[in-house]
Amino acid sequence: MRIVILGREDIKKILKLEDVIDVVKGAYCQKSEGKAVIWPSIEYYFEEEKAVMDIRSGYVIGNKVHGLKMLNNFPLNSELNLPCFNGMLMVFDSRTGIPKGVLDASYITSMRTGAAAALGVKSLARQDSKNLLIIGAGLQAIYMIAVTLKVMPQLEKVRIYDPLSYNNAISFTNNIIKTLELDFLLNPERTEFTAVNDLPKTLKDTDAVITVTRAKSPIVKKEWVKSGTHFSCIGADMIGKEELDPEIFKGARIFADDKDQSIKVGEMEFPIKNGIISEQDIVGEIGDVLLNKIQGRRNREEITIFDATGLALLDLVTGNLVIESALREESGTVVEI
Amino acid sequence: MRIVILGREDIKKILKLEDVIDVVKGAYCQKSEGKAVIWPSIEYYFEEEKAVMDIRSGYVIGNKVHGLKMLNNFPLNSELNLPCFNGMLMVFDSRTGIPKGVLDASYITSMRTGAAAALGVKSLARQDSKNLLIIGAGLQAIYMIAVTLKVMPQLEKVRIYDPLSYNNAISFTNNIIKTLELDFLLNPERTEFTAVNDLPKTLKDTDAVITVTRAKSPIVKKEWVKSGTHFSCIGADMIGKEELDPEIFKGARIFADDKDQSIKVGEMEFPIKNGIISEQDIVGEIGDVLLNKIQGRRNREEITIFDATGLALLDLVTGNLVIESALREESGTVVEI
Repeated sequence: MRIVILGREDIKKILKLEDVIDVVKGAYCQKSEGKAVIWPSIEYYFEEEKAVMDIRSGYVIGNKVHGLKMLNNFPLNSELNLPCFNGMLMVFDSRTGIPKGVLDASYITSMRTGAAAALGVKSLARQDSKNLLIIGAGLQAIYMIAVTLKVMPQLEKVRIYDPLSYNNAISFTNNIIKTLELDFLLNPERTEFTAVNDLPKTLKDTDAVITVTRAKSPIVKKEWVKSGTHFSCIGADMIGKEELDPEIFKGARIFADDKDQSIKVGEMEFPIKNGIISEQDIVGEIGDVLLNKIQGRRNREEITIFDATGLALLDLVTGNLVIESALREESGTVVEI
Repeated sequence: MRIVILGREDIKKILKLEDVIDVVKGAYCQKSEGKAVIWPSIEYYFEEEKAVMDIRSGYVIGNKVHGLKMLNNFPLNSELNLPCFNGMLMVFDSRTGIPKGVLDASYITSMRTGAAAALGVKSLARQDSKNLLIIGAGLQAIYMIAVTLKVMPQLEKVRIYDPLSYNNAISFTNNIIKTLELDFLLNPERTEFTAVNDLPKTLKDTDAVITVTRAKSPIVKKEWVKSGTHFSCIGADMIGKEELDPEIFKGARIFADDKDQSIKVGEMEFPIKNGIISEQDIVGEIGDVLLNKIQGRRNREEITIFDATGLALLDLVTGNLVIESALREESGTVVEI
């Protein structure tokens, strides 16, 4: 029995922006059609190492794959000059249970998360949105920008705010164009990239916001948000994480990637726990919008929120795509198992 | 970052019986000392494929490894001439969260399960036990025999009973000596191997029984069991599986590998559900016996039971041992990830 092993560099060469968007959209739609199963996630906190691991797993019936991803976040690794995020993804053929491949999970996670954020913005922000704000200038930010620009090339301004330091935002912004060209083959001539330091002021002419921090308390206050803004909330994916003032949820049109998971670990954890909204205020899942089963934005004024907590389904379909391309192109390492 | 990938044949060359016994014993002891964590297991039934998958994961603090195993059991594969059992094991360094290796899980599962059964027999059967009975002549039986003979070379008779067919037991038995010599480097000159068809009669002079079938109803009846017999119950590891008459548990000295898991999915599921015993009748876990924290067998007359449901901890320590040997011996495939 042979499986293919794919490292980060292999995957970077194979995986194309447009393909990730396609398969992630497909996975969301299958979930909405009842053709995907999410198994319970497992989380563990390593006390001494101040680290977190999580296991996410599931089954995408249409793609005939199941499998899992283990992600480790060991922040103290930076002191040892080792990567803080590490993870592996395993993909199995669901017709036979035979393993297809094992992949580094970090690049796939970043790309599929970018696709999630981008699909949120594309389907729930106003169609003529011009100004995108990224909150969080960490490692994931560039993926959010790249995939969103791919689906919305009309964006005129991408502003970057970092809650930890303006300097983070500046140094990140200085490299954006080069990185988009080199790593994502994008040529964003029309778009201006700016680091910003005044969040309330920036929100005054922002159409869509992607939050992608590790924050555990709100960064964006209700009173700063103008009507019609869209939020794709990416950062909150574990209990206790929070990026938006819970009050923003009141009256907003709210969507989840997976309703149960978003309530438990997503951005809507606190709005629901605090009684600001109830579960009934969640209009649906993003797949319902992508399939036109539920209307996304209904008018120019309402605030829309997409609470994306991250689904193993997205990793599995993306991983499977990479495996199949690798086998066609004879890349990666094929191992007899 | 480099990880090592190890297939079944690599692992077979590396893994020695005595080493598996050592690390499995070590894992049980660590569990008893509170130095191991078992994360919730996940199971799923594939309706159409009539197949089962399960994910088991955990953290062995002393060995500084955590990780998981996914096992798939697709019985219809035999019609396609494909292996029915498939699985992969991933091992991570718990100091950094960095992956160490990915291994075929089937051989490791078989070997560590053999070690579990053998440790049960060795520590809970009478010291002068001479006659071992294996119930179930399936793929796992040879591992049970090999490891048990390694820890108890004094065994005079190993009898094999198969509940599905006497012919299974006969053809399996015909190959035992050759397989033990070739695959396990054992030379069991003192031991006689016999296929048996009369279970009540065989139990009359049996000291220890290892049950390793997929049965979902009792094979061994209470009235056939003589005092002093030991049972290591291996087969029952999912809800609904059962090999012993629940009445055998009444008055027996009962141990689990993991108390919670044995109650939920092990051989003691039905005795407890039917009220024949209560949770308080479980004396302890096997690690408690191996550490001499709790006395195992107290006299020659009592019936002892070890309910082994299978712990990811065993796979992790065994996998880690294989990885470290492979790195030393430069075997397996090293991949940049």
